[in-house]
Amino acid sequence: MTDSSPKYALGIDFGTSSARTLLLNLLSGEEAALCELPYAHGVIDRTLPVTGERLDADWALHDPDDYIPVLERGIARVLSDVPGAAQHVIGIGVDATCCSVLPVTADGVPLCRIERWRGHPHAWLKLWKHHAPARIARRLSQVAAERREPFLARCGGLVSSEWYFPKIIETWLEDRPVYDAAAGFVEVADWLVWYLCGRLRRGASPAAYKALWSAEDGLPPDSFFAAAFPGFGPPDQKLGRDFYQLGTPAGRIRPELAARLGLPSAVTVAVGNIDAFAAFPGAGVKGPGTFFMTIGTSACDLVVHDKQIPLSGITGVAKDGIIPGLYGYEAGEAATGDMLGWFARTMAPVGDTAVLLAELETGAAKLAPGETGLVALDWWNGNRSILADADLSGTIVGLTLQTGPAEIYRALLEAIAFGNTTILNNFRQVGFEFTEIVACGGIAEKSPLLMQLIADVSGMSLSVPAATEVTARGAALFGAVAAGAFPDISSAAWALRPAMAHRYSPDRRAGAVYQDVYGIFTALHDALGRDHAGWLHELKRIKGRMAGTVSHVPL
Amino acid sequence: MTDSSPKYALGIDFGTSSARTLLLNLLSGEEAALCELPYAHGVIDRTLPVTGERLDADWALHDPDDYIPVLERGIARVLSDVPGAAQHVIGIGVDATCCSVLPVTADGVPLCRIERWRGHPHAWLKLWKHHAPARIARRLSQVAAERREPFLARCGGLVSSEWYFPKIIETWLEDRPVYDAAAGFVEVADWLVWYLCGRLRRGASPAAYKALWSAEDGLPPDSFFAAAFPGFGPPDQKLGRDFYQLGTPAGRIRPELAARLGLPSAVTVAVGNIDAFAAFPGAGVKGPGTFFMTIGTSACDLVVHDKQIPLSGITGVAKDGIIPGLYGYEAGEAATGDMLGWFARTMAPVGDTAVLLAELETGAAKLAPGETGLVALDWWNGNRSILADADLSGTIVGLTLQTGPAEIYRALLEAIAFGNTTILNNFRQVGFEFTEIVACGGIAEKSPLLMQLIADVSGMSLSVPAATEVTARGAALFGAVAAGAFPDISSAAWALRPAMAHRYSPDRRAGAVYQDVYGIFTALHDALGRDHAGWLHELKRIKGRMAGTVSHVPL
Repeated sequence: MTDSSPKYALGIDFGTSSARTLLLNLLSGEEAALCELPYAHGVIDRTLPVTGERLDADWALHDPDDYIPVLERGIARVLSDVPGAAQHVIGIGVDATCCSVLPVTADGVPLCRIERWRGHPHAWLKLWKHHAPARIARRLSQVAAERREPFLARCGGLVSSEWYFPKIIETWLEDRPVYDAAAGFVEVADWLVWYLCGRLRRGASPAAYKALWSAEDGLPPDSFFAAAFPGFGPPDQKLGRDFYQLGTPAGRIRPELAARLGLPSAVTVAVGNIDAFAAFPGAGVKGPGTFFMTIGTSACDLVVHDKQIPLSGITGVAKDGIIPGLYGYEAGEAATGDMLGWFARTMAPVGDTAVLLAELETGAAKLAPGETGLVALDWWNGNRSILADADLSGTIVGLTLQTGPAEIYRALLEAIAFGNTTILNNFRQVGFEFTEIVACGGIAEKSPLLMQLIADVSGMSLSVPAATEVTARGAALFGAVAAGAFPDISSAAWALRPAMAHRYSPDRRAGAVYQDVYGIFTALHDALGRDHAGWLHELKRIKGRMAGTVSHVPL
Repeated sequence: MTDSSPKYALGIDFGTSSARTLLLNLLSGEEAALCELPYAHGVIDRTLPVTGERLDADWALHDPDDYIPVLERGIARVLSDVPGAAQHVIGIGVDATCCSVLPVTADGVPLCRIERWRGHPHAWLKLWKHHAPARIARRLSQVAAERREPFLARCGGLVSSEWYFPKIIETWLEDRPVYDAAAGFVEVADWLVWYLCGRLRRGASPAAYKALWSAEDGLPPDSFFAAAFPGFGPPDQKLGRDFYQLGTPAGRIRPELAARLGLPSAVTVAVGNIDAFAAFPGAGVKGPGTFFMTIGTSACDLVVHDKQIPLSGITGVAKDGIIPGLYGYEAGEAATGDMLGWFARTMAPVGDTAVLLAELETGAAKLAPGETGLVALDWWNGNRSILADADLSGTIVGLTLQTGPAEIYRALLEAIAFGNTTILNNFRQVGFEFTEIVACGGIAEKSPLLMQLIADVSGMSLSVPAATEVTARGAALFGAVAAGAFPDISSAAWALRPAMAHRYSPDRRAGAVYQDVYGIFTALHDALGRDHAGWLHELKRIKGRMAGTVSHVPL
């Protein structure tokens, strides 16, 4: 940037229960103002508002009209916090959970806003964690495998129930009138961008990671969908075929909205993004060589590279998917904070989980590497990477009468660190090179011990950014890039990189011990996750068959 | 018995923290009177009384003089409960924990009673669970294996740290003056019999199961001990070579004692027995065909057969060891009640373990077979049978975010049942045939669910005797046999068999499900306990190396 007049971008990160709006100073990189607002209805997973209809297990909806007030009030709030800033805002970026989709009219009106459809559950926004179409996802995976669909190589070999087509095929199967009435099903990030600029510009990144699309191959062929669900399709019917790259402008802000919010009419709105991916540049990561992880309930690992290198065990790869111009690879561990919370709740069903977790962290930190005598496989929610097997389950070996809660907790942390290094090694094996790990997310703040363990086991230094909201920060950077303030997102990320709050250097003595324990972890990982995965699959199958059947009642 | 005048026998069962004295009516089989008295000092495992010297971990001592008042007061108490019974007592039987040994003078005076030795920890009674000589036991096992000592075939291939020679070699190594001052080291049961009748008559059964002795081969050769611990031996130096069979008389009660207790001077004192073994006839089991288990903190399984059939995976076999005339086989699971208690304490460190266990039992009983989705290996204290590997450790597989405490508790119960069937099958494989299981002990009373699971998994009916003290009852029966009231212990056991309080019939539908789960258990058992036992051994080795080393302290 050549002149020194103040410049700002707005970044808005729409999460599962709230949205965070950030006013980012594009000269200093300072977080000028920040505001978090919850959604009025929260997650709708028991009964449908208005009708009171009970929702089945695995359902998770949002009311899209919860987003609009949060969007507008959030922007108004941060602008009012910094008097005079509004006139210097040049861009807005939005990210959201993904894949969270809603059916809309051709004008972008959510069907659930319309009286005629309001009582139909399928007319609402299906949240990313709406897992009800698991059966549909399995059918798609199976047919894709039979047909050796090329897209499987880009998505870890499996279609997830969280993705676009399982969600809309579910509507097509269960509520055809809603399906037919919808002009399209849109990602909530794209719908919010549409609301901001009055133009639907679907993001390429959500399409690539969640809708089986790629720039090279487009969408899967009609024949694939016809084979899996005869009568469904073509796939672009509700999705279109035009997707726009990250960091490109979707349009100017709608004049009416600009006036209402006191923003200049020239403000550029960037194409929408996936929340975890916005965090990548938000944390100051500019390109290859960094292993970036967002660790909360689960861990999402992101890596970029200038080549497309075939490798299994990732959840997705897409050109331009994270940083335009580079291939973006996604991998992850399916249960991290979730597993730690499970342990605390299982141990103390009535206690305060947060307090207990803090105590466990303190106790576990007093143990030496290898002192637990335990090895765990962190598959409480299946294994996302590198086995891509949702039917695996967690294991603890090495338990004795002397094992205490702190030992088990530490073993779970070590399992996360071992799982992380397994993913790192999977990349390294095909030629990726890393010089550092950058971690953000709730667990990166709450468990310094885990961060140290990840450094020790991987042998790499790990940094945690000081920025409180790296995701909203990344969204703001994309808004700035779309507005032309930076030539590209990597330059923006680097220029405005946040300070690092913590840096964990690998402890060599700990690393040497962990090398031995990791050897046992790997042997157990391969035995239970590969050679004998049938044991865990069979247990799950038996469990599914027997669950809820009446037990014999002894004496 | 030909006449109908009342006849009684006294049975006294010396446990770890208390002794139970039973007055058994030999005509009706009725438990005429029962009394339990604790030892004044309990288990001495922290500091030595008098000197206050701190004891190392793994030490566990008793004061032998705690036994005498308990013995005398117990007899006096039950006799006073049944006026007129004293004159009809014909025999006394004693059993005790084994191997619990004490150094004594030639007159049977415990060294620790003598001022000169009272400050020496090795002068006290080393309780069965005094595990400090583990290193010595390993050395003996190793040398025995190198020399292919025949006794290994009778003791499951390993010398336990609980046995006679590790305990006295420990004294020989660490306190030679005590070792030299002792005329002998005697089992506490033998010492109590000595006290009762004034004559040392060492029992053959403790010698066979705990001192590597057999009627055919005698003690191991001097050269074995010389190879392991040059200078130590000969092995009979403090043990002698004369051992007396179960149910034979050790002698008449000492006149002075008889007069003091109001007993007839003709009362016969039987040779001493091992506590778990006395329970076998006490429960009414008379011979082959019954799989007998005593299940408390651990499980001791006993089987008799008219032949000596070579098989691995047992902890001991001895002719006349349980029932004279038959080969007595011992096997066991090293952690049962211990493991359940561990789980309750680990889950609720401050709660009431008994209350929590009862809640867990109720919750677990509501689940169907296979519904836990879990399989556990019950090796929290190593594996006694059939792997005889103390360095194995516990495993749970199948954990998910939905797994609750009741699921884990039930999986632990199922693991005990699977372990039990593994032992049963090990016997069956070499030709043993069983028609029933008889179970007694604390857990047999407290966990009806476990008893049902053992029946379901094994496919055999399981009975729990109504008698409250089957062990003391068995001791009394041996007293009666020694006094000539019955031709042999099997006749006595059958004639006075207790009623069965509960009978658990195998549920065929549950059995069918468990056949599948047991298949996975067996696969995991063989993988972690045989093919890849090195993984668990290595974890234990690393733990031993790292325990207590200062941990790196994160941030």
